[in-house]
Amino acid sequence: MNAVGRYIHDNRDRYVRELTAYLAIPSVSAVPEHRDDVRRCAEWTADSLRRAGLEHVRLFETPGHPIVYADWLHAPDATTILCYGHYDVQPPDPVELWESPPFEATVRDGRIYARGASDDKGQLFIHVKAIEAHLSQLGRLPINVRVLVEGEEEIGGTHLADFVRDHRELLASSAVIDSDSAMFAPGVPSIPYGMRGLVYFQLDLRGTTGDLHSGSFGGAVANPAGVLADMLSRLKDQDGRVTIPGFYDDVRSLGDAEQSAFAALPFDDEAFRRSLGAPRLCGEAGYTTLERLWTRPTLDVNGLLSGFTGVGAKTVIPAVAMAKLSMRLVPDQNAEGIARQFEAHIRAVAPTTMDVTVTRLACGDPWLAGVDDPFVRAACRALEYGFGKAPVFTREGGSNSITTIFEETLGATVVMFGIGLPSDNPHAPNEHLALDSFQRGILAAARLYDEIATIR
Amino acid sequence: MNAVGRYIHDNRDRYVRELTAYLAIPSVSAVPEHRDDVRRCAEWTADSLRRAGLEHVRLFETPGHPIVYADWLHAPDATTILCYGHYDVQPPDPVELWESPPFEATVRDGRIYARGASDDKGQLFIHVKAIEAHLSQLGRLPINVRVLVEGEEEIGGTHLADFVRDHRELLASSAVIDSDSAMFAPGVPSIPYGMRGLVYFQLDLRGTTGDLHSGSFGGAVANPAGVLADMLSRLKDQDGRVTIPGFYDDVRSLGDAEQSAFAALPFDDEAFRRSLGAPRLCGEAGYTTLERLWTRPTLDVNGLLSGFTGVGAKTVIPAVAMAKLSMRLVPDQNAEGIARQFEAHIRAVAPTTMDVTVTRLACGDPWLAGVDDPFVRAACRALEYGFGKAPVFTREGGSNSITTIFEETLGATVVMFGIGLPSDNPHAPNEHLALDSFQRGILAAARLYDEIATIR
Repeated sequence: MNAVGRYIHDNRDRYVRELTAYLAIPSVSAVPEHRDDVRRCAEWTADSLRRAGLEHVRLFETPGHPIVYADWLHAPDATTILCYGHYDVQPPDPVELWESPPFEATVRDGRIYARGASDDKGQLFIHVKAIEAHLSQLGRLPINVRVLVEGEEEIGGTHLADFVRDHRELLASSAVIDSDSAMFAPGVPSIPYGMRGLVYFQLDLRGTTGDLHSGSFGGAVANPAGVLADMLSRLKDQDGRVTIPGFYDDVRSLGDAEQSAFAALPFDDEAFRRSLGAPRLCGEAGYTTLERLWTRPTLDVNGLLSGFTGVGAKTVIPAVAMAKLSMRLVPDQNAEGIARQFEAHIRAVAPTTMDVTVTRLACGDPWLAGVDDPFVRAACRALEYGFGKAPVFTREGGSNSITTIFEETLGATVVMFGIGLPSDNPHAPNEHLALDSFQRGILAAARLYDEIATIR
Repeated sequence: MNAVGRYIHDNRDRYVRELTAYLAIPSVSAVPEHRDDVRRCAEWTADSLRRAGLEHVRLFETPGHPIVYADWLHAPDATTILCYGHYDVQPPDPVELWESPPFEATVRDGRIYARGASDDKGQLFIHVKAIEAHLSQLGRLPINVRVLVEGEEEIGGTHLADFVRDHRELLASSAVIDSDSAMFAPGVPSIPYGMRGLVYFQLDLRGTTGDLHSGSFGGAVANPAGVLADMLSRLKDQDGRVTIPGFYDDVRSLGDAEQSAFAALPFDDEAFRRSLGAPRLCGEAGYTTLERLWTRPTLDVNGLLSGFTGVGAKTVIPAVAMAKLSMRLVPDQNAEGIARQFEAHIRAVAPTTMDVTVTRLACGDPWLAGVDDPFVRAACRALEYGFGKAPVFTREGGSNSITTIFEETLGATVVMFGIGLPSDNPHAPNEHLALDSFQRGILAAARLYDEIATIR
């Protein structure tokens, strides 16, 4: 083990303490009340980069939450990479289901529990610590490294995309290492090469000026909650297929090679079902679970609110009803096109009995990359070094539109380099990260820079 | 004007002050946190009856909220009536839409605004003050009067029904005067002779143990919010007719006489629509608005809750989804039968992808009475005395299962004797009562006892 590796080994406890401090900041980008916390978290991120030895550390303001940038560019003959991550987190709701407070990191059974432990503070932090290890032990990095950390990933914000387009020179890199990813299974290091796209909407219906007594008025006015249920129900047919005209037109069929590769992955439907506590799995007929998750588009209702939701019976016809819903997209669906098709469809089916408002909250394309790229191969070797085992190639059901934007704007190869797990509850109560993976991740990230330096 | 009438006239301001104190008690029966307030309100009600000169005033405990009873039985040769009302109120939600605090009664433009002003504290209080006027001015009432005030009307509680069945002798009366009613329109005193029944349910769906990331899991598990929307949507067909098997089997057709009488009432669809702020009215084809409200059954969603309902976009597959829904029933539908049909229907259509729980929250039969009964005729004369105009006969869309129970258990004629208006916002923000109607109501109630004394 070299000096960098030894340093990483020796500083294990300090890394956990620092991560605990990072996780204590409730940087919930979706909730306006947390605006100051989000900024404080950006500043904490910048400080940690400065302490790691990076230069040109600064916050860039956006119309939303700030972007953090830093770099180390003293390897003039070497290539340049950009490490990407996000310091914002999902809301902790429902808070009452957490076994320990979401913003007081707690270690149990070798895992650290807190909102952001896995998505993405913990995964981003492995690069901060890997860079620190190189600079503190060797005084230099083997390649040029930039770090870019945003605060709007969890709200599908568009400000980072604008920032990347406006700062091509500042960000110029041959590869982007994306920390916001995951391993396929415990002990199975992975490189995902595809992600689904996302369009997200809020639907608001208003039937009357105020709530009405359901006895005095029931039968003579349309009910927004009932109409909303109708509208949502008619977005899918009886087989669960999305009924928005044209929705499946551009969906690419899965080739035999990928189909076989996915089938060879260690995946057990029954164990998956049990882990979710679902009575049974459910999805498009004719596809395996992994194919449904990685290669097929979806439409999900993410939230519903209308009328009386307290304890007991209130006989009210709600004045308004609200739904949040989103679609995951796959190659070659186009997010903007699907979003327009959805908006047109809602306009077409909206009843004349109430006001219907559609608000677009996110819109990002799917992503699919090659697996033979030299940066991808370097990442393979680094993960094998850190985890003692060659990674598998997977796709992800999640979305991150910035991937496509990095590719298109910087001409960079995007490499997914995550060490969390889908079962880390990244968007649910009791989010966590295995501390063994965290430590191996730091080692793998430190090795990644060395492996990239060998690319000719 | 006799001594009673003069006394009522002279005490107008005091009545409003006392009602204001009554309305200050947040006796929200549906909300467990208000349990002590509900009891305090029962005690306030009892004190007011005691101060009015009634005897045997006491609270009867129930498994829920207490029942208040009082009587004056010193007219041995005269008939006995029972004045019924309820001291509990609807929740004030959404509180932010109130122009003045819901439990600080405020007089504006001749109306008193507060939760319960109309439904039912204000309407009940006219009898308390009418009885007080007789006893204080004449030392007696012309008939025997019992007063029965419950605290669970707004939650469709069953404890009053049990109480009535268990206390037939205590409550023995020839007529029940039900204060929980309404006038058809401002300045149009009315005697409703029909009410719809009510069955009310909560539906709870659970798909998985916890909320899931909609990217990592979307497409492989059923979505409780989506399934709930489907289930609700399939409770009605495209024409808005309820699809529960057998739902319409026992619905009685409207006769020509009632149809003509309803058509003769002063009712303007466009003014009604405008008053609700609805883009257009909506209901069963082939029926007028009044027919839809009074003579046709309904199914309404009263509340929806699932997943993320805050500001912004959270990409979650909810673990659970909840709906509250209710049906208004008409003669000759049977509430228990319809409730069982609904429960069987839900069991039949519930998917195997999630746990579905149905909870019955209310179950009461519709009511329809004759208009030639001598007590009804006495009420007509009393209302004409108080309001200077003969009342019209109407039905109500609302529900009060106690009506049927009074009839069946006591063998009493039930007379609806209300002075509020449907537009008083009884279950919505800014509930109010016209003070002129309140004052005329006290006069009419005082006269009612005299008119009933003349029945031979």
